[in-house]
Amino acid sequence: MNKTNNASYTSWITVPAGHDFPIQNLPYGIIKTAAKARVASRIGDNTIDMLALFELGYLSDIKGITRDIFDSPYLNDFIASEKEITRAIRQSMFDLFESSNSRLRENPIHRDKILIPIDKVEMLLPVKIGDYTDFYSSIEHATNVGMMFRDPENALFPNWKHLPVGYHGRSSSIVVSGTNIHRPKGQIKPNDAEKPVFSASRLLDFELEMAFITSKGNPLGEPIPIEKTEDYIFGMVLFNDLSARDIQKWEYVPLGPFLGKNFGSVISPWVVTMDALEPFRTNGPKQEPEVLPYLKSEGARNYDINLEVFLQPESKEPFKLCHSNFKYMYWNMNQQLAHQTVNGCNVNVGDMYASGTISGPTPDSYGSMLELSWQGTKTIIAPDGTERKFIADNDTVIIKGYAEKNDLRIGFGEAVTKILPAK
Amino acid sequence: MNKTNNASYTSWITVPAGHDFPIQNLPYGIIKTAAKARVASRIGDNTIDMLALFELGYLSDIKGITRDIFDSPYLNDFIASEKEITRAIRQSMFDLFESSNSRLRENPIHRDKILIPIDKVEMLLPVKIGDYTDFYSSIEHATNVGMMFRDPENALFPNWKHLPVGYHGRSSSIVVSGTNIHRPKGQIKPNDAEKPVFSASRLLDFELEMAFITSKGNPLGEPIPIEKTEDYIFGMVLFNDLSARDIQKWEYVPLGPFLGKNFGSVISPWVVTMDALEPFRTNGPKQEPEVLPYLKSEGARNYDINLEVFLQPESKEPFKLCHSNFKYMYWNMNQQLAHQTVNGCNVNVGDMYASGTISGPTPDSYGSMLELSWQGTKTIIAPDGTERKFIADNDTVIIKGYAEKNDLRIGFGEAVTKILPAK
Repeated sequence: MNKTNNASYTSWITVPAGHDFPIQNLPYGIIKTAAKARVASRIGDNTIDMLALFELGYLSDIKGITRDIFDSPYLNDFIASEKEITRAIRQSMFDLFESSNSRLRENPIHRDKILIPIDKVEMLLPVKIGDYTDFYSSIEHATNVGMMFRDPENALFPNWKHLPVGYHGRSSSIVVSGTNIHRPKGQIKPNDAEKPVFSASRLLDFELEMAFITSKGNPLGEPIPIEKTEDYIFGMVLFNDLSARDIQKWEYVPLGPFLGKNFGSVISPWVVTMDALEPFRTNGPKQEPEVLPYLKSEGARNYDINLEVFLQPESKEPFKLCHSNFKYMYWNMNQQLAHQTVNGCNVNVGDMYASGTISGPTPDSYGSMLELSWQGTKTIIAPDGTERKFIADNDTVIIKGYAEKNDLRIGFGEAVTKILPAK
Repeated sequence: MNKTNNASYTSWITVPAGHDFPIQNLPYGIIKTAAKARVASRIGDNTIDMLALFELGYLSDIKGITRDIFDSPYLNDFIASEKEITRAIRQSMFDLFESSNSRLRENPIHRDKILIPIDKVEMLLPVKIGDYTDFYSSIEHATNVGMMFRDPENALFPNWKHLPVGYHGRSSSIVVSGTNIHRPKGQIKPNDAEKPVFSASRLLDFELEMAFITSKGNPLGEPIPIEKTEDYIFGMVLFNDLSARDIQKWEYVPLGPFLGKNFGSVISPWVVTMDALEPFRTNGPKQEPEVLPYLKSEGARNYDINLEVFLQPESKEPFKLCHSNFKYMYWNMNQQLAHQTVNGCNVNVGDMYASGTISGPTPDSYGSMLELSWQGTKTIIAPDGTERKFIADNDTVIIKGYAEKNDLRIGFGEAVTKILPAK
């Protein structure tokens, strides 16, 4: 185990027990103060201004980095650095903030320049997103949807176990946690109506997902072999793929989801690196039938990451809707990226690849209201006595995620959005 | 009629009869010479270096423009200028190159700096594409596909006449004319096979499309009303949406096309402005049943643009595969953009919105091999005696487009790509 993944190290920055951001995490994000936007990391409730860190000479041992990769409103140039560089930066920060290191700890002037409390900064969208793909890689979710809308005996389409089904989504409407979204309007066709009507969506849903971000591109025409895919994946965020089920149902045949999805997707602001998640690798489900050679991956390619969704009615306390785990994914990220590029499709730095709804095997692990209310046939009763089948106006949806093993806990923070009434 | 659309004006730059780029066109593109990439326009076979035009003071009458909008490898900042500014630039260039104007004509030093022959420049992708949507707006095409794959009696899906069906595509793999594309590999499932196989696509196709480019964005949550949509549309290009029919067929259920489309789409390098196309407005097909109010558009919202596709076998002359017209589109661009944003989806400067395959009413106007060969049941015989049902290796596909009325001809040039064998 790498030192930076070893739970026995602590930081001289206070980190409360059970916090998402211990010294072993060191996620990356974009902070903004009155001054401007720049690249940051985080330990506990302090953000680390990495532009200040660079300017004050704390990264001077690392060859090949320049000021401009930190002086940016997006992580793209920073994450596009070679992995050996970003790993050296991670190691440097780890050493600098480790309890026994007095260099910055005993320099209050520098400390005040570098450490900014989380409540003093605005968090921005971490990456300039090029293309965005949404996969459909949870077998439990795909099976649930198939049982509801198709045939309980043949819930999965014939292609599902042969390839990671996915589609292109809209990158412009991916927003950072804390951005509120108006209930979308659009065409819906009630079952008893002859024609579609124009209406605010009546079946607004969340989808519990995670997404990975690429930090390296391939030229058009040159697939990324599966054994090289990990070189291209920098880190992950929580992802809420808001969905208007009624708009989607009417529009999606034959070319897939469009306006039912592209009115807003919400991500957590901190990109947690694959380096920080390394201790949480685990095996995925057995794939049967055997996959084609270009999709064969060996070893532990899934990650054990606990996921939770809370719903907070207006002026009330949040209550838990479900808990799931990223390890349930049938198709892993390596397979997704190998599939995405097998036809020669090129990926770029800052692309986002979402998992699809991550449901688990039990009803309390289903990652959408569609499944939790089983297409509106069941009612979810909130602690305040109000009832839900889908999301109500002024409900806040909160996704949380964390990995935990022995004494090490690496968290993602939250992806939060409040649904405002239709305009 | 605006002077810049008046066919009676000519330029002192030689423009052969029937050329795509008379003085009334003035399209925009990105040229590159040994020096670097910058914004350009074109008359006849001369490109107009607009950075040089600006630096030499020929645009000094126009308030609110700065050097950097021309000193860029993408048109985005230039087209993001207010329409009154880009129109003033169009008017200035028209005046400067109009036959009677001696200012630049009689200044050989400046002329040599500003006018660069087309064969001395490399044409780059004109815009940095944010998001890309592909619509499905030709009723003839949708009907043909529905007849082949569904039910000749119910060829159109129930939603088709109520909304412009569309889906998100991959922007990273949109390339400029002249870029050659390798035949993609992927999963296909032969009809007689139990399982999919990994293979080079056997049913590679072109799709004859056009695309419009947005030059203004709307905030997330604020739809663009249909009567305002023309303020957001800057110009158009030819678009070849290459499609691997066998990959597409196996993968696309239930979430739409993915690897069957994203291995490469080819556009023409010159963005022809809506200002240049103004004289070619025409009425679209009658829409019955009546569309919902947010999709109602009045007046002539289609454009009469002739489209042709040629196929050139290796080392042979090109022959015409089909000719169609953009005026056949059932859904116009205003309706497409109003629909794209009606749920609050935000668009950005440089987004691309393709029409979907533009087929006409007769078999010689079908815009894809799928339709021309009627799903492989008919054979297309090339002048060299070789036969095609789909595209063969080393075939070059050439899309051309032009509008013509009285003495005015506004062309698009070409979108050309050669299909190289699978790697």
